Amino acid sequence: MTSSLHLSNVCLADGQRVCVALANGRIEAIGPHVPVQPGVPVVDGGAALLLPGFVEGHTHLDKSNWGRPWYRNEVGPLLTDRIGNEREWRKTSGHDAAAQSLALARAFVQAGTTRMRTHVDIDTDARLRYLEGVLATRHTLRDVLDMQIVAFPQSGMLIRPGTVELLDSALAAGADVLGALDPALIDGDPVASLNATFELAQRHRKPIDIHLHEPGEVGAFTLKLLLDRVQALGMQGQVVVSHAFCLGALPDRERDALIDRIAQLRVALLTSAPPSRPVPPLKLCREKGVTVFGGNDGIRDTWSPYGVPDMLERAMLIGLRYDLRRDDDIAIAFDCVSDAAARGCGFADYGLRVGARADLVVVEAQSVAHAVVARPKRKLIVANGRIVVRDGELTV
Amino acid sequence: MTSSLHLSNVCLADGQRVCVALANGRIEAIGPHVPVQPGVPVVDGGAALLLPGFVEGHTHLDKSNWGRPWYRNEVGPLLTDRIGNEREWRKTSGHDAAAQSLALARAFVQAGTTRMRTHVDIDTDARLRYLEGVLATRHTLRDVLDMQIVAFPQSGMLIRPGTVELLDSALAAGADVLGALDPALIDGDPVASLNATFELAQRHRKPIDIHLHEPGEVGAFTLKLLLDRVQALGMQGQVVVSHAFCLGALPDRERDALIDRIAQLRVALLTSAPPSRPVPPLKLCREKGVTVFGGNDGIRDTWSPYGVPDMLERAMLIGLRYDLRRDDDIAIAFDCVSDAAARGCGFADYGLRVGARADLVVVEAQSVAHAVVARPKRKLIVANGRIVVRDGELTV
Repeated sequence: MTSSLHLSNVCLADGQRVCVALANGRIEAIGPHVPVQPGVPVVDGGAALLLPGFVEGHTHLDKSNWGRPWYRNEVGPLLTDRIGNEREWRKTSGHDAAAQSLALARAFVQAGTTRMRTHVDIDTDARLRYLEGVLATRHTLRDVLDMQIVAFPQSGMLIRPGTVELLDSALAAGADVLGALDPALIDGDPVASLNATFELAQRHRKPIDIHLHEPGEVGAFTLKLLLDRVQALGMQGQVVVSHAFCLGALPDRERDALIDRIAQLRVALLTSAPPSRPVPPLKLCREKGVTVFGGNDGIRDTWSPYGVPDMLERAMLIGLRYDLRRDDDIAIAFDCVSDAAARGCGFADYGLRVGARADLVVVEAQSVAHAVVARPKRKLIVANGRIVVRDGELTV
Repeated sequence: MTSSLHLSNVCLADGQRVCVALANGRIEAIGPHVPVQPGVPVVDGGAALLLPGFVEGHTHLDKSNWGRPWYRNEVGPLLTDRIGNEREWRKTSGHDAAAQSLALARAFVQAGTTRMRTHVDIDTDARLRYLEGVLATRHTLRDVLDMQIVAFPQSGMLIRPGTVELLDSALAAGADVLGALDPALIDGDPVASLNATFELAQRHRKPIDIHLHEPGEVGAFTLKLLLDRVQALGMQGQVVVSHAFCLGALPDRERDALIDRIAQLRVALLTSAPPSRPVPPLKLCREKGVTVFGGNDGIRDTWSPYGVPDMLERAMLIGLRYDLRRDDDIAIAFDCVSDAAARGCGFADYGLRVGARADLVVVEAQSVAHAVVARPKRKLIVANGRIVVRDGELTV
């Protein structure tokens, strides 16, 4: 942990030139006239753009092949093809969840991510092995990366007996959030699957993050069942629906009614903004008060080779998916990987304000939109008060 | 023009280790056992991946703001908002088509593009001024970049009297291809607009590249009128339809019949693979024998700030848009910015084969798919037989 630092001569999104005083991992002062305290080291930001540390709202650190020899993808087209292929490959390839999650998490830090929610596969083959690997990575990087771990039944829950018990153990062992997956189309029994998920979450007093790939009307049906339970069990503000493709492919009236209810129950939505799938309507959701945030989903894994651990690139892809061209619109894309993601995941003390955790990214860009489309090298990154990157290179 | 060069120790897409002998701007030999000729300089490729020079199938060099102070986009949502805003801005901002096209074209070369089709605005305000700027850039870069120029009526043709005459002058002044734009929704008279376009193209014996943004049924109507004229006038193999959003939003039977006819008339399709618009079905078009190729469209201009002059990134975006995940599928995305684009634009002597123009890109990647998703720094680029980039930096 650093003690103190004075970052001078950086620009806020509105163009205002400011200084930032940091101490004990917190922002102590930020503004145009912050006096340098005696003995505090000064770093000149060179009039570059100051952004808050980025927030990765949904990734899968444990299954990445980042930095490893190329995985030749010859997988079939179905969700179940991908799930089965991956489970077998992880069992037989020597893939190491601890080493891989560390490699990818470090690359995230190097590109300015200081908070992250990662989903970790829990299944009856691997049991808690991948969780143990990611817990080790979280421990290693604890001073610079604030990591939430989701215990995620990637291979299904009810269809693989023993999985509920493993999720129970995972939550006891340090997972922060309970994951879930397609209660109808994977688990085959939406009511029983959702009941089991909510029962387990309530027992551990943990929030829920469900991967809902179910399309159109079946997704809407499952979503309604889920919202009923959020309401009945008083879990407002404690549930995230990831993907929610169904909200991109419903008749307007049905969609709008669902979104109104999502807002009312303070359920948040996560999107990776996939160009080949329907996606929740971003601006409409925001207008109705729903928190929508962004994430990469998997990066360089057996599902898909795409993705880089750079939230500016994810913001760019969100901007492209939603056709955000104006500067004020592209600021929404950046919000998805910063403030909205912190809010959606429940990361406290976030942002460029006094008292917040000192997580800062400095880039050579003339505006937030410029940073999003150009994704420039990170000139300086401060994580939890400590300089972790200079000129693109990790210093820790 | 270089005389000779021996590039050793590079890998083809299939993994085969080869050498390439270059002389007089051509590939003289390529294979595992190419003897080094006496006196010929040898460059060791370090077992990196060898790709053909990239082909940009559709961009707008003349309107880019690349490398200039940030343009704050506050433009309205309609196509006509964007057209009108841009024409005014270009008139009043001091934007210089010659300087900007040169800056962006150099950046394309630096990232491995050696052939390019660029559309240049021709309108009654600017007349041929932008064309003159791009002709100057073409001349400056003639040794390393093979550039086709499309005379493009960005502000409409029939709706702005005098435009047909300016297009006529542009074709006489060195434009290679006649452009056209939304004959129904912009020009307001699809039959008269298409007739004028085909008449002009035939008179100059030049091919046509039409920007068809018209959606769904109206786009299909215009497309049918266009195909009728290709057939009646014997212009098979001489027409490109850019964008063709309508083919992404028609009932299957109607779409398939149109695609069959497109194949029969050897009309090629260009897509930038926009994530927020319907797009032609890539694999289906290819199966039916239609050439589909890729391009960036505008880069960093008043229409949109997105885009970089890197065809590997465009291939990545094509892969994401069409959900191409397998290695053999991602090879299709790369084909869109290499072989298919050369075929679609009519660039001769293209590819990694004896007799082709010596346009080579060497990158540290373990496969073509890896190159597409990782977009690594260009280790070496040869354009027209000459080394133009080493370790990412222009040498000319």
